[in-house]
Amino acid sequence: MKNYPNSGFTVWFTGLPGAGKSTLSKMLAERLKQFHLPVQILDGDEVRKRLTKGLGYSHEDREENIRRIAYVAKLLTNIGGITIVAAISPYLNSREEARAEIKDFVEVFVQCPLQMCIQRDPKGLYAKANRGEISNFTGISDPYEPPEKPEIIVRTDEEKPEESLQKILTELVKLKYIPESLI
Amino acid sequence: MKNYPNSGFTVWFTGLPGAGKSTLSKMLAERLKQFHLPVQILDGDEVRKRLTKGLGYSHEDREENIRRIAYVAKLLTNIGGITIVAAISPYLNSREEARAEIKDFVEVFVQCPLQMCIQRDPKGLYAKANRGEISNFTGISDPYEPPEKPEIIVRTDEEKPEESLQKILTELVKLKYIPESLI
Repeated sequence: MKNYPNSGFTVWFTGLPGAGKSTLSKMLAERLKQFHLPVQILDGDEVRKRLTKGLGYSHEDREENIRRIAYVAKLLTNIGGITIVAAISPYLNSREEARAEIKDFVEVFVQCPLQMCIQRDPKGLYAKANRGEISNFTGISDPYEPPEKPEIIVRTDEEKPEESLQKILTELVKLKYIPESLI
Repeated sequence: MKNYPNSGFTVWFTGLPGAGKSTLSKMLAERLKQFHLPVQILDGDEVRKRLTKGLGYSHEDREENIRRIAYVAKLLTNIGGITIVAAISPYLNSREEARAEIKDFVEVFVQCPLQMCIQRDPKGLYAKANRGEISNFTGISDPYEPPEKPEIIVRTDEEKPEESLQKILTELVKLKYIPESLI
């Protein structure tokens, strides 16, 4: 059915802030680029600057944020790109909408207990949220709805990043999105 | 220097409302798709629904609208896509920003005298603008700044659409973006 390398797909990383989405998305992109595949990362933080300036963190604005990312991911996927999305994307419903729109969609749940994300706190945002300086912060003052049937689950509390990456690559081969020679 | 078909570029149509941007962009996309090239149109009207909902037609909002289109065009171009933008994009400065960001950028000025665009008025928008029902309408109550050095000029008041298309294809060959076998 799939016809790599001309067939695009989207790998959608979802998880709590600090779970490891950006790290893994960069590792995956680098690996695929070594094989000259057309890869593009859509990182939540950059997208907030370029596509969704003006949107806040209310439920409605978060939904619109994800809708825009999904639209761009679809465009990239349709021309044969491998799109890697790294965005908290906390709501089940928004991710299901993205899946329906993009079609060739691989959801990766970057699982890590909240307590460990709070300990890591790479950007110091949990500390701010706990001091009440940020409102609607996912995991603290805004819900995170984990995926029900993600294609892939990585456990960044237990696995080394390289192990999680390997899990993802193996699954992409099984799903016939990339050839076995890549792993 | 260029390495088709793996090297992306953006064809950016600019011109007054009703000049023929959407028509020509669709014709160009169809022609290139016949050769199985990875083509994506970004049409101003669709983009307004998907990426820039909430933006209006003030100078600032128009600039932000074009910045978002340019960002997405860059992403598509970077992975080897042929991106076709059809948007009024009335300001010189915004288009120059887009050119600087995208780099492989071919500006097509779809030239047509305002009076003829008003006669055509395919969406009935000039009539509304003239009745004062739309404010900030390009050509009537908002400026259109024609390009100073576009790569291509088509004259939709004098040429048939097929002639304009041929002009564009010929120029894309000269610029080495597409092989001569395509025209």
